[in-house]
Amino acid sequence: MSAWNAPTAAPSSYLVVTGSELVRGDRTDRNGPFLARELVRLGLEPARIAIVGDDPVELEAALAEGLRSDLCVVSGGLGPTHDDLTVQLLARAAGVGLRVDPRLEAEIERISRAVAERLRRPYADFEAGVRKQATVPEGAVSLGLAGTAPGLVLDTGRSAVVILPGPPAELQRLWPRALETEPVRRVLERARPPERRVLRFFGASESQVARALADAGGEPDGVQATVCARDFEIHVDLFGPAEALADELRRRLPKYLFAEDERPIEELVLQLCRERGLSLATAESITGGLIGSRLTSVPGSSEVYLGGVVAYSNELKERELGVPASVLRGHGAVSAEAAAAMAAGAREQLGADVAVSATGIAGPGGGTPQKPVGLVFLHAQSPEAELALEFTFRQDRESIRRRSAVAALHLVRRLLTRSRDTST
Amino acid sequence: MSAWNAPTAAPSSYLVVTGSELVRGDRTDRNGPFLARELVRLGLEPARIAIVGDDPVELEAALAEGLRSDLCVVSGGLGPTHDDLTVQLLARAAGVGLRVDPRLEAEIERISRAVAERLRRPYADFEAGVRKQATVPEGAVSLGLAGTAPGLVLDTGRSAVVILPGPPAELQRLWPRALETEPVRRVLERARPPERRVLRFFGASESQVARALADAGGEPDGVQATVCARDFEIHVDLFGPAEALADELRRRLPKYLFAEDERPIEELVLQLCRERGLSLATAESITGGLIGSRLTSVPGSSEVYLGGVVAYSNELKERELGVPASVLRGHGAVSAEAAAAMAAGAREQLGADVAVSATGIAGPGGGTPQKPVGLVFLHAQSPEAELALEFTFRQDRESIRRRSAVAALHLVRRLLTRSRDTST
Repeated sequence: MSAWNAPTAAPSSYLVVTGSELVRGDRTDRNGPFLARELVRLGLEPARIAIVGDDPVELEAALAEGLRSDLCVVSGGLGPTHDDLTVQLLARAAGVGLRVDPRLEAEIERISRAVAERLRRPYADFEAGVRKQATVPEGAVSLGLAGTAPGLVLDTGRSAVVILPGPPAELQRLWPRALETEPVRRVLERARPPERRVLRFFGASESQVARALADAGGEPDGVQATVCARDFEIHVDLFGPAEALADELRRRLPKYLFAEDERPIEELVLQLCRERGLSLATAESITGGLIGSRLTSVPGSSEVYLGGVVAYSNELKERELGVPASVLRGHGAVSAEAAAAMAAGAREQLGADVAVSATGIAGPGGGTPQKPVGLVFLHAQSPEAELALEFTFRQDRESIRRRSAVAALHLVRRLLTRSRDTST
Repeated sequence: MSAWNAPTAAPSSYLVVTGSELVRGDRTDRNGPFLARELVRLGLEPARIAIVGDDPVELEAALAEGLRSDLCVVSGGLGPTHDDLTVQLLARAAGVGLRVDPRLEAEIERISRAVAERLRRPYADFEAGVRKQATVPEGAVSLGLAGTAPGLVLDTGRSAVVILPGPPAELQRLWPRALETEPVRRVLERARPPERRVLRFFGASESQVARALADAGGEPDGVQATVCARDFEIHVDLFGPAEALADELRRRLPKYLFAEDERPIEELVLQLCRERGLSLATAESITGGLIGSRLTSVPGSSEVYLGGVVAYSNELKERELGVPASVLRGHGAVSAEAAAAMAAGAREQLGADVAVSATGIAGPGGGTPQKPVGLVFLHAQSPEAELALEFTFRQDRESIRRRSAVAALHLVRRLLTRSRDTST
């Protein structure tokens, strides 16, 4: 069969992330996940993310592997010092020469002279570094500078190669420019961005969702479904023409399905409040500020969220939230009664329409047979209704706290969507 | 030269992390960084972390590469379903057969029967999965089960291979057992755990610290030094016999050096308070609970940290922290005066010895020419002293907030160490 009749295979892609601090586990890589999401969105799911350190032999081997893909994206190793070898090793792996780009050199020199002046150091100290950073593979195109390091695109014939600086903000800034270059556009033209959906469930277990998926007949031809716990929610990611399967899942788990987009729960909660014209406050013990910090991570949250009290001590629960001493004495600070009083107190004392509270035992110490580590009480109250939740989550301190914060946000969501349901 | 006279090279290691959600960027890998830190600690810095998806060709290629190292650690792909292929592909790459381990099969069957009963499903549904998970490479040793998936160690002659389940908690639980097996111990015996130090600086820039390092003479023979920004601190990691270099750095940057261990700043702050018998409270606006959530992430923080107020609205700043309306009117909520009043108010209203406050403009909206996005005021007050800090940090919302929280904690540290200095 002649080549132009063959079904076009999706182009392949490969990520090489460099950094000795990454291969030592001193820092968690953010560039690989960012680039991977971008490539998936463009229909170019990467075959591999290779994280390599400074070792030149290893780095060159990884680059050589990457050069066998249609698109190879490389991050890091572009600095002025001798141990930043990405450009040099890439040129060698690709079998192309290196040259000093005069325009790039002039640009980097200008910046470096300004730095030298500011630091009151002779420019001569910078000269070798400037020359090094202006040295690029023959035929490479500059994407512009990040500091003094140029992002680059190189067409090797076999492969389009994108070379980006390691700092995530810089990498993300230069990435869109790479997508507009000719070599990358030629690869993108052959890719088909996937039809993609996400169904998000809360309150169901991962196996419960997986079972619903199996009972719904599993993956039809051409559809890929993955079930994944993320931020204590269960996400079903559907790739391909999966509308029928999505319908089946909606039908089978209506109680747990709460969203079909990627916005974080704090954003959904703020939107629910905004739509209903309600202000929101928090009363946090076990979560110590996590709920507030998630809510305030959303731009514009101040329109809805007034603030809250982190009442870690019993005294602050009484003084700042008006929790009656009798409740603390009779039921303890970790009790459904205390949670209810905290939410009511937050509404009253902070003047909010809706309030949510969290109290519990995060551990590792402080548990008893009656009240073990991981026991958490949540309470949400609106002008019309309230909802309480108790759970025990046997995990480490940080997971217990984070899960409590997520569950508290979901409790507000349920409270607000439920009160709408009953009012219609 | 005969082999036994050759200098012993450090053993090599290689990590293969599998998971289609990782290669799609849907989840950030935690296993690679954990295992990398462990291997570095043991003197076995990995040459590469290869993250691969479900594609069998790609996975087998990565495993084959890993098998060329002295130690290869693999995570994920051990589930009961047909697309979990780690064990099968590893056996093929290593050229060894597969067998069903009868003891393992009995153990997995017992667990699966209990699950089937709980879910009211016929055990027949599980049978193929049980057999699949009890199928191991010839010669492999079980490390015990994670759910129904066994961790395994295999000695290929060339390489010790450790196969661990993907869920991070399970992987971390089985990992110490792998270290006790004969094949892994033989590799560890040849490794030399590095002499390692960390010097942590706050307030100095990365280039300032790098310059001090260069001025101190750079890396002596056998010493590796890396300068790295972590959590808005600058860390210098020193590997090898670096006591003299560490002394030089201590001498050159005394003002910024604050710790030589890995404990997070919130833990250092809590310890300073505890040593001085001081209680602590927070008054947060821009950070929205981040400072509190970091403090309460530390077990036992309730001995020191009373709680705080998240005063996102002006009304709460007045009502809960007693910030005078005249301050808010005259200087605005984002001002040194408001920050000072918030800290003083938190001490008074919450009955704490020490309080710290943060107010600022996180953006993206809300900035003005006089008060741009990224402008932050911090204030810390103790019974004896107070410290104020103002900075403008041109970054994204989340970075501005996180940096503000870290800087607030450091301000408390400086306040408490300084008041000690002046009292002696």
